[in-house]
Amino acid sequence: MTATAKEAQRYIGARTRKVDALERVTGRAMYAADIKLPGMLYGKVLRSPHPHARILRIDASKAEALPGVYAVVTAQDLPPIEKVAGSIGGELVISLVDLRKMTIAHDKALYDGHAVAAVAAVSPEAAEQALELIDVQYEVLPPVEDALEAMKPGAPLLHEDLFTRTLGERPTKPSNVAMIMESGFGDVEKGFAEADIVHETAYSTKMVHQGYLEPTSTVVSYERDGKLTVWSTTQGAFGIRRSLSQLLDMPLHKINVIPTEVGGGFGGKIYAILEPIAAMLSRRALRPVKIVMSRAEVFRATGPGSPMHAVIKTGVKRDGRLTAGYARIVMDAGAFPGAPVGGAATVSFGPYTIPNIRIEGYDVVTNKPRVQAYRAPGGTPIAFAVESHMDEVAEKLGMDPLQFRMVNATDEGGKATNGQPYNRIGLKEVLRQVSRHPCWTSPAPEGPHRGRGLALGYWSGATLTSSAIVHVLPDGTVSLLSGQVDLTGTRTTMAQMAADEMQVPLEDVTVRMADTETAPYTDLSAGSRTTYSMGAAVHEACKDAIRLLKIHAAAHFKAPAQDVEYGGGMFWLKENPEQKVDMKTIAGNSARAASGPIAGYGAVTRLQPAHQFAAHVAEVEVDPETGKVTVLRYTAFQDVGKAINPTMVEGQIQGGALQGIGWALTEYYDYAKGMLRNPTLLDYRMPTSLDTPMIDAVIVEVPAPDGPYGARGVGEVPIVPPAAALANAIYRATGKRLRGLPMTPEAVFKALNGK
Amino acid sequence: MTATAKEAQRYIGARTRKVDALERVTGRAMYAADIKLPGMLYGKVLRSPHPHARILRIDASKAEALPGVYAVVTAQDLPPIEKVAGSIGGELVISLVDLRKMTIAHDKALYDGHAVAAVAAVSPEAAEQALELIDVQYEVLPPVEDALEAMKPGAPLLHEDLFTRTLGERPTKPSNVAMIMESGFGDVEKGFAEADIVHETAYSTKMVHQGYLEPTSTVVSYERDGKLTVWSTTQGAFGIRRSLSQLLDMPLHKINVIPTEVGGGFGGKIYAILEPIAAMLSRRALRPVKIVMSRAEVFRATGPGSPMHAVIKTGVKRDGRLTAGYARIVMDAGAFPGAPVGGAATVSFGPYTIPNIRIEGYDVVTNKPRVQAYRAPGGTPIAFAVESHMDEVAEKLGMDPLQFRMVNATDEGGKATNGQPYNRIGLKEVLRQVSRHPCWTSPAPEGPHRGRGLALGYWSGATLTSSAIVHVLPDGTVSLLSGQVDLTGTRTTMAQMAADEMQVPLEDVTVRMADTETAPYTDLSAGSRTTYSMGAAVHEACKDAIRLLKIHAAAHFKAPAQDVEYGGGMFWLKENPEQKVDMKTIAGNSARAASGPIAGYGAVTRLQPAHQFAAHVAEVEVDPETGKVTVLRYTAFQDVGKAINPTMVEGQIQGGALQGIGWALTEYYDYAKGMLRNPTLLDYRMPTSLDTPMIDAVIVEVPAPDGPYGARGVGEVPIVPPAAALANAIYRATGKRLRGLPMTPEAVFKALNGK
Repeated sequence: MTATAKEAQRYIGARTRKVDALERVTGRAMYAADIKLPGMLYGKVLRSPHPHARILRIDASKAEALPGVYAVVTAQDLPPIEKVAGSIGGELVISLVDLRKMTIAHDKALYDGHAVAAVAAVSPEAAEQALELIDVQYEVLPPVEDALEAMKPGAPLLHEDLFTRTLGERPTKPSNVAMIMESGFGDVEKGFAEADIVHETAYSTKMVHQGYLEPTSTVVSYERDGKLTVWSTTQGAFGIRRSLSQLLDMPLHKINVIPTEVGGGFGGKIYAILEPIAAMLSRRALRPVKIVMSRAEVFRATGPGSPMHAVIKTGVKRDGRLTAGYARIVMDAGAFPGAPVGGAATVSFGPYTIPNIRIEGYDVVTNKPRVQAYRAPGGTPIAFAVESHMDEVAEKLGMDPLQFRMVNATDEGGKATNGQPYNRIGLKEVLRQVSRHPCWTSPAPEGPHRGRGLALGYWSGATLTSSAIVHVLPDGTVSLLSGQVDLTGTRTTMAQMAADEMQVPLEDVTVRMADTETAPYTDLSAGSRTTYSMGAAVHEACKDAIRLLKIHAAAHFKAPAQDVEYGGGMFWLKENPEQKVDMKTIAGNSARAASGPIAGYGAVTRLQPAHQFAAHVAEVEVDPETGKVTVLRYTAFQDVGKAINPTMVEGQIQGGALQGIGWALTEYYDYAKGMLRNPTLLDYRMPTSLDTPMIDAVIVEVPAPDGPYGARGVGEVPIVPPAAALANAIYRATGKRLRGLPMTPEAVFKALNGK
Repeated sequence: MTATAKEAQRYIGARTRKVDALERVTGRAMYAADIKLPGMLYGKVLRSPHPHARILRIDASKAEALPGVYAVVTAQDLPPIEKVAGSIGGELVISLVDLRKMTIAHDKALYDGHAVAAVAAVSPEAAEQALELIDVQYEVLPPVEDALEAMKPGAPLLHEDLFTRTLGERPTKPSNVAMIMESGFGDVEKGFAEADIVHETAYSTKMVHQGYLEPTSTVVSYERDGKLTVWSTTQGAFGIRRSLSQLLDMPLHKINVIPTEVGGGFGGKIYAILEPIAAMLSRRALRPVKIVMSRAEVFRATGPGSPMHAVIKTGVKRDGRLTAGYARIVMDAGAFPGAPVGGAATVSFGPYTIPNIRIEGYDVVTNKPRVQAYRAPGGTPIAFAVESHMDEVAEKLGMDPLQFRMVNATDEGGKATNGQPYNRIGLKEVLRQVSRHPCWTSPAPEGPHRGRGLALGYWSGATLTSSAIVHVLPDGTVSLLSGQVDLTGTRTTMAQMAADEMQVPLEDVTVRMADTETAPYTDLSAGSRTTYSMGAAVHEACKDAIRLLKIHAAAHFKAPAQDVEYGGGMFWLKENPEQKVDMKTIAGNSARAASGPIAGYGAVTRLQPAHQFAAHVAEVEVDPETGKVTVLRYTAFQDVGKAINPTMVEGQIQGGALQGIGWALTEYYDYAKGMLRNPTLLDYRMPTSLDTPMIDAVIVEVPAPDGPYGARGVGEVPIVPPAAALANAIYRATGKRLRGLPMTPEAVFKALNGK
């Protein structure tokens, strides 16, 4: 797509204030938990106390008899599962049949916390009390907790009807391996044969949570006429609508999903987990039902980030050139297939020019909650592996780690791991800027137990469909309508773009994020696609609005519309640039003029991908007595194509890096015999701003060939490098290579002490 | 516009159930008074106890000091009036400067009940109490109550700055006559000279109220970031937005008006009367403010229907042919200019072929509430005059009243009173059907004091701008979005049209009437324009959606879109009609296909008018001892062009006729010295269904040349003939001609007894 002329960019690239800052800080912004409807009931969910158990019988009669209880539902209350078809998700797809079983256990409970039944009652207390009266008879089964264990012959089977999808023949026996994927190109054996050094290492990471502040919540109102209204904290209202339509066997037009403000999502608020339960309860009770998860429920049952086991093997020439790369990636999907194996494969050797690549990926089910996306799903674990491995290789070669990356860095025309060529990318520019930055050029940190580490990050981002409508009002102000959920300041960036496109002051633009009934179709906010695709849709809608304005201007000038020009907020005729008329005048009587009101429409699908590359440099100090790692300095370089709003771009980079630091050092799901031991924010340790120094974000701008103004997606890649950057820094500080996450004080202490 | 093929009309013309029946009868439909927001305050309005008074001083300090009071406002709190420009209203226009003064009195209170100040407090009781603490010093002025009095030299002047608008020179002295209009054609003096009989009579009518059940109400929330959200019981949300923008000097994009359900409007819920006051209070208090009018406030201060004095003079040949028509119409606008003189002039001789016509109209201000539209504004009073007059002329000629109308009835090519030719109209077909109907062919009612009367009605209707968006969802169901307010079953008729256009079952269509931020621009629901213009917009939007679907079908067939046909819910290629694909399949993956989601857009402006003609036949019995008139039988014939939903069309005809009967027999504003004596539903006597027989609606269908499926507007013309039909029936029953409304028992008794 074409970009707006640079001289017309007054707000694009500016550090404008968030247009919705005031409603956020004053508490006016409405979250799902804020919704209160007349006659509303409170829903609570009964969850499995076993990680793996067959459900023999559910007796809810006592619960139903409790005063104040309006409805009790189980999977039996759902329509026939044969009606369910398709799949859903942006970067991490789940079949809707599995989503239904994940929402509420059918014949088996598959993880600690799996929903088994639900109650709606006049108060949360009455609902809790009713839960205790539901009698569930379980046949307890042995759980399998780790993907490698689950792959072994004789491991407990989660699904008797799950057969491995693979390139070869369809297997005859069910398995916990849902899929084996292969990708790459060239001949790795030949590549290894040509290498001077072949290096092979293994890595593992644990399950983590996105850690959004706002718990998963919903309010659902089913009416007797078959109309379902849903308030949902979701990253994509249209996906929730489609899921509910499939899961509850309802036509789409009968469902209206109103996306509320979202208090953090990071990929973890994509699936309709709670909405179908609330809808079942509301349909039964014929009253609105609210469900707000507790923090423990959020941990146990929403969909965390996927753990990984990986083996990385590379061949390299003495001069540093990589000749072959092999990765075996085993990812744990939790209870239903769909781990981010594809994303991990794409990231793995994505930043490198390697002539021979082979990747094997395994999508494995275990008795843990089904994972959802978490910022660049699959990226952090595999980058921890590959970028740690590359550091080891550089050391073996005696090369500077940055120099080693510069030798092998890919560029436009280079191949992604699936063999597709890259369009214009900024990795080399990112490395060039690292090489000149004080965080790298300054002397390595002084003192014992200190070290500096470097790691690269890559993400390709999603595109999908976005649409927008731009209403130009009779006073020349602009009202933009979109179905995009604002996770990261989207209202502000869309307003910046619309103001520049329409050539009006920013304060003359309102952005309305609307429900599925009033907004034009738009896919979810995820996959670093929002600014990229929605921005392109806004650009198209503004072009359409200007086309309509030109028709009105043509009537004003009594000339053909194609002779009308627009610039600087003024219309004129090509042949007479002296006689200008301002936009407000032209918009003035638009509603009643024969050519109609001005509603510009823009929809984009299938943009080219805008690949995102990053490099992080971390400095740490390790306390040898406790194993505690302190981050001293952290610098994140990222090619964002064009920073529409640098302040918000920096915020994305800082937030992603901080989450990566948490994943690296402290966060993990602590399972024992299939039971989650730390489902609280006290025991699941997320870093705060007090735990880290200011994260220095360095914006690199190599324009993307497609998309608005050269912008690339920003939100995901910052979480990819931190774990590896810290592992590499810890190695420099201690001489110890940690190949598992998290690198807790305990783990570091053990490494230091040779355990 | 082209109509859909008859064979494809499955729902158009059918008596389908109201799509929103359930939400109405179960109380789910939300009215403005139902809205409750956190922290909401209650507003109350202090109203002038004098019909005419200068406001010398307002001291609100005691009210402001009352605990629980958050804001007190007066006209002083409004921005400078110089910023206000333009006018508003569908059929009854008011300048926005006058609307501002009507909303809250500036220097003078101009009628009993004129708003003077307003309070917002934590409870309605606290607000009421605060009102009592506001000290207003008035200089009481003499009021003028009647338009003819107001025209006299020396009458009290309402506005020192009001000068009569007239074709001649601008007068030098201010006046209560806001405007003198003239219309007509030919030479009336010549016409009268050619006549065998010249007849002249005078008529008068009183002020009446639309009598909607739901009182005027609003909830307004002003936020610190300058955003105004308004819930309003209004006939047109976009008009409220524009009014607020002008009155409060706010940009349009900062205002979102959410039209709630409307419990009756009939033209009386068009102006922003309460919303600006609530907005001022909310802006001051920084909290949401709700105001719900009491019934007395509704009567005293919303905007009733205009009273009239008229002189009618016609010349006629012995054979019944009219040679000249003259009307002098004095209409009372209440306190600010803008009585429906134009509407009355259009209606007056509209149904007749008269070669020479002259109409003089006077728009006069008095110390009464400023009028709003009331179903065919100006129509009922002038038709009472002209149709009574024509009955008298027919009697003088010794002609049957129907025969007399048939001789003079106008037709396509005939002239409206402004000289414009009619397009295709159905008056003659209406009269033909009357002539064959038992209500007319049966013997005249037996017994003394019984009589039958006939009267014609005419209305030209409004067109203006309407827009709609039709979303075709991936499961082939349809979601229609519009900013039209549903007063009369619009959701249902739009769903019928969309179902037929898209060729899907009616139950697959949802119609959403949305707010000004999400809906495309649409003018108010008034002037019998809704089905007509909105229907045309839906038709256009569906055509556009089918165009988009054909692009998707073309991708499916791998053929150009222009080769794709659509019919019966199936797509096929012209060259291969055997191989059909259903719409659901094509819509299926639309959201993600390269050609984008399916959002069809339609906007119409400036359709041709669709003239509406009616004839009513009434039979009455008069009690000579009390003067009470009992309606025995009532039949209403109306050319509706095409009845999209006959049940709802009949409902409109019945409702309009019943309101006309009330206006004719019992309803009036009872003023004494400028003070309204009957502002309650006990003392202001509206007929109920127990007061009248079943009203028989006879639907005549002469298709309109423009608009959807030949449909014409329906809602207004049924109120035009009743007063004259009843006056003519009373004359037949008693031999007494009543030339003033209402024809109360008292008035009839006086007429019978020679007073």
